[in-house]
Amino acid sequence: MNAPTIAQALSRPTPPACLEALATRFGAAFSTALAVRQQHGRDESPFDAPPPAGVVFCSSTQDVADAVKLCAAHDVPVIAYGAGSSLEGQLLAIHGGISLDLTRMNRVLRVAAEDLTATVQAGVTRLQLNDELRHTGLFFSIDPGADATLGGMTATRASGTNAVRYGTMRENVLALTVVLADGRVIRTGTHARKSSAGYDLTRLFVGSEGTLGIVTEITVRLYPQPEAVAAAVCSFPDVASSVDCTIQIIQAGIPIARCELMDANAVRAVNAHDHLDLPVQPLLLMEFHGSPASVREQAESVQTIAAEHGGSRFSWADTPEERTRLWKARHHAYLSALQTKPGCRSVTTDTCVPISRLAESINDTVAEADAAGLPYFIVGHVGDGNFHVGYLIDPAKPEERELAESLNDKLVRRALALGGTCTGEHGIGLHKQGFLREEAGDDALDVMRAIKQALDPRGILNPGKIFAPSE
Amino acid sequence: MNAPTIAQALSRPTPPACLEALATRFGAAFSTALAVRQQHGRDESPFDAPPPAGVVFCSSTQDVADAVKLCAAHDVPVIAYGAGSSLEGQLLAIHGGISLDLTRMNRVLRVAAEDLTATVQAGVTRLQLNDELRHTGLFFSIDPGADATLGGMTATRASGTNAVRYGTMRENVLALTVVLADGRVIRTGTHARKSSAGYDLTRLFVGSEGTLGIVTEITVRLYPQPEAVAAAVCSFPDVASSVDCTIQIIQAGIPIARCELMDANAVRAVNAHDHLDLPVQPLLLMEFHGSPASVREQAESVQTIAAEHGGSRFSWADTPEERTRLWKARHHAYLSALQTKPGCRSVTTDTCVPISRLAESINDTVAEADAAGLPYFIVGHVGDGNFHVGYLIDPAKPEERELAESLNDKLVRRALALGGTCTGEHGIGLHKQGFLREEAGDDALDVMRAIKQALDPRGILNPGKIFAPSE
Repeated sequence: MNAPTIAQALSRPTPPACLEALATRFGAAFSTALAVRQQHGRDESPFDAPPPAGVVFCSSTQDVADAVKLCAAHDVPVIAYGAGSSLEGQLLAIHGGISLDLTRMNRVLRVAAEDLTATVQAGVTRLQLNDELRHTGLFFSIDPGADATLGGMTATRASGTNAVRYGTMRENVLALTVVLADGRVIRTGTHARKSSAGYDLTRLFVGSEGTLGIVTEITVRLYPQPEAVAAAVCSFPDVASSVDCTIQIIQAGIPIARCELMDANAVRAVNAHDHLDLPVQPLLLMEFHGSPASVREQAESVQTIAAEHGGSRFSWADTPEERTRLWKARHHAYLSALQTKPGCRSVTTDTCVPISRLAESINDTVAEADAAGLPYFIVGHVGDGNFHVGYLIDPAKPEERELAESLNDKLVRRALALGGTCTGEHGIGLHKQGFLREEAGDDALDVMRAIKQALDPRGILNPGKIFAPSE
Repeated sequence: MNAPTIAQALSRPTPPACLEALATRFGAAFSTALAVRQQHGRDESPFDAPPPAGVVFCSSTQDVADAVKLCAAHDVPVIAYGAGSSLEGQLLAIHGGISLDLTRMNRVLRVAAEDLTATVQAGVTRLQLNDELRHTGLFFSIDPGADATLGGMTATRASGTNAVRYGTMRENVLALTVVLADGRVIRTGTHARKSSAGYDLTRLFVGSEGTLGIVTEITVRLYPQPEAVAAAVCSFPDVASSVDCTIQIIQAGIPIARCELMDANAVRAVNAHDHLDLPVQPLLLMEFHGSPASVREQAESVQTIAAEHGGSRFSWADTPEERTRLWKARHHAYLSALQTKPGCRSVTTDTCVPISRLAESINDTVAEADAAGLPYFIVGHVGDGNFHVGYLIDPAKPEERELAESLNDKLVRRALALGGTCTGEHGIGLHKQGFLREEAGDDALDVMRAIKQALDPRGILNPGKIFAPSE
């Protein structure tokens, strides 16, 4: 789907009776004001689509269930909305319908410190959760760049910089409360660390992008704050060397907590945006967690490996403040890069490949991007084999978008050929539906569709996402 | 389901035309000999059921697909068979049909050492895989007691002693080849470490006990063999102290690789069976993995915690041979215990609870078992909150089975009340169908059933398992 504007034609009108029923049930918590609808009709994707017909500000699972029931009675689509930070068009009301804003569901319901778990409402953000955990000695590990809600992170199977050590939402969600397409409420999973009790509904809903149910509560794993933390920056002569270094770190089984690549373009952008003076060349931003002795040992091993690949002596961020500054800059890379080309938008790729294929995957990508002449930057959770290229395009110039998409096409096809995936953490949304079919194959996609049909026979849960309309 | 004998009445006769078609397609690889059928008509569960009508010895995914297609054409059930070590009746042909023996699918297809993955056929056993990995510096971590096949371990979402550090099959399966109910073959997942591409079919098939598809190939994660390994035995004055010690180890975030409980009865049994002289009192059998310094550090921390709970000085197994002997003994606990009461069978429980509730869960269980007077033993992957009680019953005395089942009922209900699960790693099979409904709730079970119906509309894939017949 290369077109930036989604045809109005897809959007079904919402029956006035449905809007009236929602207004009656929700009063001031239901809005059809254009500004509110427009705010809920976009995300961080480069697509434009008509806004939803209304927005329900839900405060409880019961609110969500009631809203879904009312919409289901009129065959009206529902789309859950959190921080609005999805990147592949997951939030767009391309078939019309109602946006369910879950940001008022922002309570941390329970911190079971003795079990290393927390149960939160879907609208809690990752920074909020870690803020509330500050005095427990525990932390929640998953950090996509944005301050996303845990509901949104569940829906897209998010990961981020810590996943190389602590896993993604797939590994860190223990249990869910989910509103089904008919408004019934189920609980999946338990608070035990493992279970063999029936089908793994938890992991079915994780990553389903709101198309199988609406997640309203999430129980996640927490980790003890490591006794010692050390962050280091290591610069490399070129991207290839930094990638080779990463591959060797992973193959050696070093339990590195974060291993992030920024290319020279990304470094230049964050230097400007965050007033840093990092050497303008590719770097790995790394973090080590453990006991002081273990952190020292890990860092020494990695420094040795890095040196063999032309890496610089580590530049250390020793205090929590310095570390925070560095990681904030890393998380600002996307925004920083956007600011280097005023008015631009980013077409952002998200492939993930087996670690041994990362070098050829990235090196070929760099060569193609350089040859194409479009401004770009690369950041990557390279320890996972996952990296993002952001092609900066002028939205007024369709040829730039086309060029970016053709680069992305090549990149994704290469990732699939190397045994990888078209999306490591952003999801399918509107943008990768064709790639999903290529990756999974027709028959596996049929299985996904059969599940969708079984759980949402009327197709009201975030319709038009994951699956291409013609399928 | 307390009755040990499954009514013949459930079993549908297999149409002769189906048997003829299988004989034509598979020749000598299809058997209807009674001895072969009987061997494939039982597992390690205490149930008796009529054997399947025939057995196909499959050598390839294509064989499985062809067998499924032929059976589907006649609405004949198919049940995949590996090592025959399932504990909850998963392999029993209670609705008749054909057993698909996958043990000839015993090839390790690919070891991608540089990606820390291996792809195997479903009939490869865990010991075989580790044997073939011996010279790669890598290992496959999951070890249920039996030398199960990876197909069976996938089907039951198996775990074992290493799961506390390395996770279960849920976390360690990257990709699958699956034969669907109509004989189509799909591939799920990729060889990348993470993905957000569509529904997580991999995890849907993991733990589905052969009811959604037949897994024929599995790609699993491998881990570098740790630089240093140390195993230690620590004896405790009572079970409660050992459990309190475990809880504190986990809460401290110590990355212990194995943390296994054996009660005095289990110790007595393995001493006799494996000619050991472990002190006949509850013990923790622990293993530490890492660099030499990290192993030393972990062990010191745990020794300190253990001492606070009355634990003995560690008795170390320093050489690989000593460690192997100790872990073999641990894995023999089940067989060893059976030998303490000749002719007995074991009713084995499998609850898993949040770690903070493990003490009350086990202590109440011990009190009830002692009061009941039935011989029993306890072994547990206590670092996960998972433990097994084996009640040793005389199969000729229905009252002993009834007593064991009533103890299990209490145990499971307590686990559910504590936020746990009725099965940590054995699965539902025939035995825990009622408990699954209690644990998941009617509506979540409906969702599971809807998925089953969508993927297997004619109900030929291991029918009668996971879901109770009346549901």
